[in-house]
Amino acid sequence: MSVSIMTQELLALHISHNQAAMLRFIDQHPLADCAEAFSQLLTERQFTEQDVCQLLTLLPLEKQVALFGYFSLTWQEKLAEQMDAQQLTQLTELMPHDERADLLTQLEPELQQQVLDQMDSEERSDIQRLVAYPEESVGAVMTSDFAVLAADYTVEQAMQKLRSIAKQTETIYQAYVVDDQQRLQGTVSLRDLVISEPSLTVGKIMTRVLIFVRVDEDQNVAAQAISKYDLLALPVVDGQNRLVGIVTYDDAMDVAEEEADRHMHKSAAVDFTGNLKEASVGLMYRKRVFWLVLLVFGNLFSGAGIAHFEDTIQAYVALVFFLPLLIDSGGNAGSQSATLMVRALATGEVIGKDWAKMLGREVMIAGLLGVTMAVAVSMLGLWRGGPEIALVVAITMQIVVIVGSVVGMSLPFVLSKLKFDPASASAPLITTIADAVGVIIYFSVATMILDFPPTV
Amino acid sequence: MSVSIMTQELLALHISHNQAAMLRFIDQHPLADCAEAFSQLLTERQFTEQDVCQLLTLLPLEKQVALFGYFSLTWQEKLAEQMDAQQLTQLTELMPHDERADLLTQLEPELQQQVLDQMDSEERSDIQRLVAYPEESVGAVMTSDFAVLAADYTVEQAMQKLRSIAKQTETIYQAYVVDDQQRLQGTVSLRDLVISEPSLTVGKIMTRVLIFVRVDEDQNVAAQAISKYDLLALPVVDGQNRLVGIVTYDDAMDVAEEEADRHMHKSAAVDFTGNLKEASVGLMYRKRVFWLVLLVFGNLFSGAGIAHFEDTIQAYVALVFFLPLLIDSGGNAGSQSATLMVRALATGEVIGKDWAKMLGREVMIAGLLGVTMAVAVSMLGLWRGGPEIALVVAITMQIVVIVGSVVGMSLPFVLSKLKFDPASASAPLITTIADAVGVIIYFSVATMILDFPPTV
Repeated sequence: MSVSIMTQELLALHISHNQAAMLRFIDQHPLADCAEAFSQLLTERQFTEQDVCQLLTLLPLEKQVALFGYFSLTWQEKLAEQMDAQQLTQLTELMPHDERADLLTQLEPELQQQVLDQMDSEERSDIQRLVAYPEESVGAVMTSDFAVLAADYTVEQAMQKLRSIAKQTETIYQAYVVDDQQRLQGTVSLRDLVISEPSLTVGKIMTRVLIFVRVDEDQNVAAQAISKYDLLALPVVDGQNRLVGIVTYDDAMDVAEEEADRHMHKSAAVDFTGNLKEASVGLMYRKRVFWLVLLVFGNLFSGAGIAHFEDTIQAYVALVFFLPLLIDSGGNAGSQSATLMVRALATGEVIGKDWAKMLGREVMIAGLLGVTMAVAVSMLGLWRGGPEIALVVAITMQIVVIVGSVVGMSLPFVLSKLKFDPASASAPLITTIADAVGVIIYFSVATMILDFPPTV
Repeated sequence: MSVSIMTQELLALHISHNQAAMLRFIDQHPLADCAEAFSQLLTERQFTEQDVCQLLTLLPLEKQVALFGYFSLTWQEKLAEQMDAQQLTQLTELMPHDERADLLTQLEPELQQQVLDQMDSEERSDIQRLVAYPEESVGAVMTSDFAVLAADYTVEQAMQKLRSIAKQTETIYQAYVVDDQQRLQGTVSLRDLVISEPSLTVGKIMTRVLIFVRVDEDQNVAAQAISKYDLLALPVVDGQNRLVGIVTYDDAMDVAEEEADRHMHKSAAVDFTGNLKEASVGLMYRKRVFWLVLLVFGNLFSGAGIAHFEDTIQAYVALVFFLPLLIDSGGNAGSQSATLMVRALATGEVIGKDWAKMLGREVMIAGLLGVTMAVAVSMLGLWRGGPEIALVVAITMQIVVIVGSVVGMSLPFVLSKLKFDPASASAPLITTIADAVGVIIYFSVATMILDFPPTV
């Protein structure tokens, strides 16, 4: 059932005050969809936050936590502000540790303090530890509730332990074996435990952990590792190799999705990853205006080039006919190269020192593309302006496609070398650079071939 | 350890013929990295396919299968061609059902037949079923080895069953309950089984399956569902609601990654998702040339516009100064809008009927952006050409930004309505359209304000 139909049904049940039917409805639909429908109804002010909070209290606690977890952080915050301290504390006690830390940092200091005060000191310090990690770090996305075993447990004891913590632990499918210093020794999957002799020790059946990540690394490193090594969860260690958390595959999927969006949007010079439908006009204006204005000033270089060659243009106005075509072609070829390279750098398929190797190949590819496009455009040149113009546009096309491609493939390398995000080598930026270079190449070639005295 | 260091170490061990050390090395490194290092060595012709095949035979069969699975399909195919039929059959018998079907379709018909002949008829028909699904469908990415239970099993019997199939089943963490017609009844997680009373029946503890997917749906639907609902695996049913397979989270991650790459590359008008470093010059030429040449012809419209206004240009050469700037700005604003919209449509955040609603907002945002950019550019206009030129470029800027944005946001809707991929609304395409429209707007405004007689 589509969420928009669910929204209508929920609204109808709400208007008729049929609470029992509403609970049945929630029972029969995926919680993620229910949360989406409620968010929709909240946005349209058909439901108030109090309505949703009250409905939550009617659900079994476990389901309440799960449903609440599917709301966006913004809605979680607004809902939390309408709950009494007891409901909120109950909820946060059972929420995944990473999600509740995210939520608490969003709350008013007063409310935050109320919730923290009601927690026992261990939970409190856990939250304080989690919120201290920088935003893009592994620490900010990991969870601190994971299953820990000792190497001298028997398989039977291990199963017993996992059974007892199953309800409040995010995953029991992967358990971690640590020594008395909390240092990571190995890992055991529930699958391994289930198929092993109950009397064996965990130390005997565990596998060495070959893949882990430091808590201060970038989240994308964790997400990429989980995807590459097909992991359910990735252990996270601190500087002393002590196990401090795990990143689960579902969090890794969210990180990867956000990263892909960010890349995509950077490639169009707009840095926005929220919900497009909910974003205000003012927000979208702010997200877009910076790059657009900056690129206007970048285009001054093209203008300056044109100004420099005004006499040539005056004498051969037909040259203007080919101007958009030639400068666009350089930009298009450059955008292709930049996009391919940004992605190859992001996946680690290509690294910094490969630049020289890639350059030679890029020149060959661009050379071939340039020949093809020069042939296409020279026919237009013949038709529009005669053989001399045809020669000018063909030579220019060949050069701008090579230059554009080389700039496009190199810029991501340069940015990454300078510790900027390679994805900032966006199509509009490449276009602007290719335009300026293209104008100068075009009119220089024209001036030479059409036998003008050099302009000043 | 980085893969390039691993490559060097493996090469050193290979040259010194130290097979025992090589096996130890494989034992101590993640198999995904080993496969990457071997692929590198194969590409550089430091290892032959026979070397790798021979090494594989020295590994325990389970490890052999896992390592082989981390090679790309291209390398799997080349390696398979060097194996004797017995080694290949052993391997394929234990491979995940989806991966072995992919591999077999790549093999020479003769070799393919040899392998199929050695399999028992059930396995053979499983493969034949899997390879019959269209390339982008759920069927082509699902696996057919999943854990099935009956509702009248006790928890204890269910555990027994899962234990017995654990080795050859891709995941036992999620088991599916079907009736005697293979119709999906419910699902039980291993976690549920582990924490439940052994004497309860599966029917008692199973949960209703609310989320499943049809085998002929697009793979992206499955990947999105797994991410949205945080699933480990998604059940796949045929037209009669019979369970025919599952899609696991790791396959969903691969699908999502490929889709993100595809989007990213479409946005730059280049359709390539392979390994950039391994791709040949010829392949890259073919992947890039089509769009580039097509866009050259698209640019003819800009040229035609310019030709139409040649007299205006001749009289006011200063106008050419602002040409790249104005047409680029329309294209840049349009690329931003298109990128935001393509992503919103892909995630389902925005649907077809939202177009009208989004249009009004887009005009407001673009109006504000246009004003800002018009102010910036009019100052340049004053400086370069006086108040009349300033007025022309300011008005043109305002119009092209609005037109560019509206085209950029609408094109993905139009493409999706026409059943094309909205992601084809690439930056270069938008740029080309915005250029042509921009040229006409610019010189029309100029002709009006600078008080020319209309040209023919």
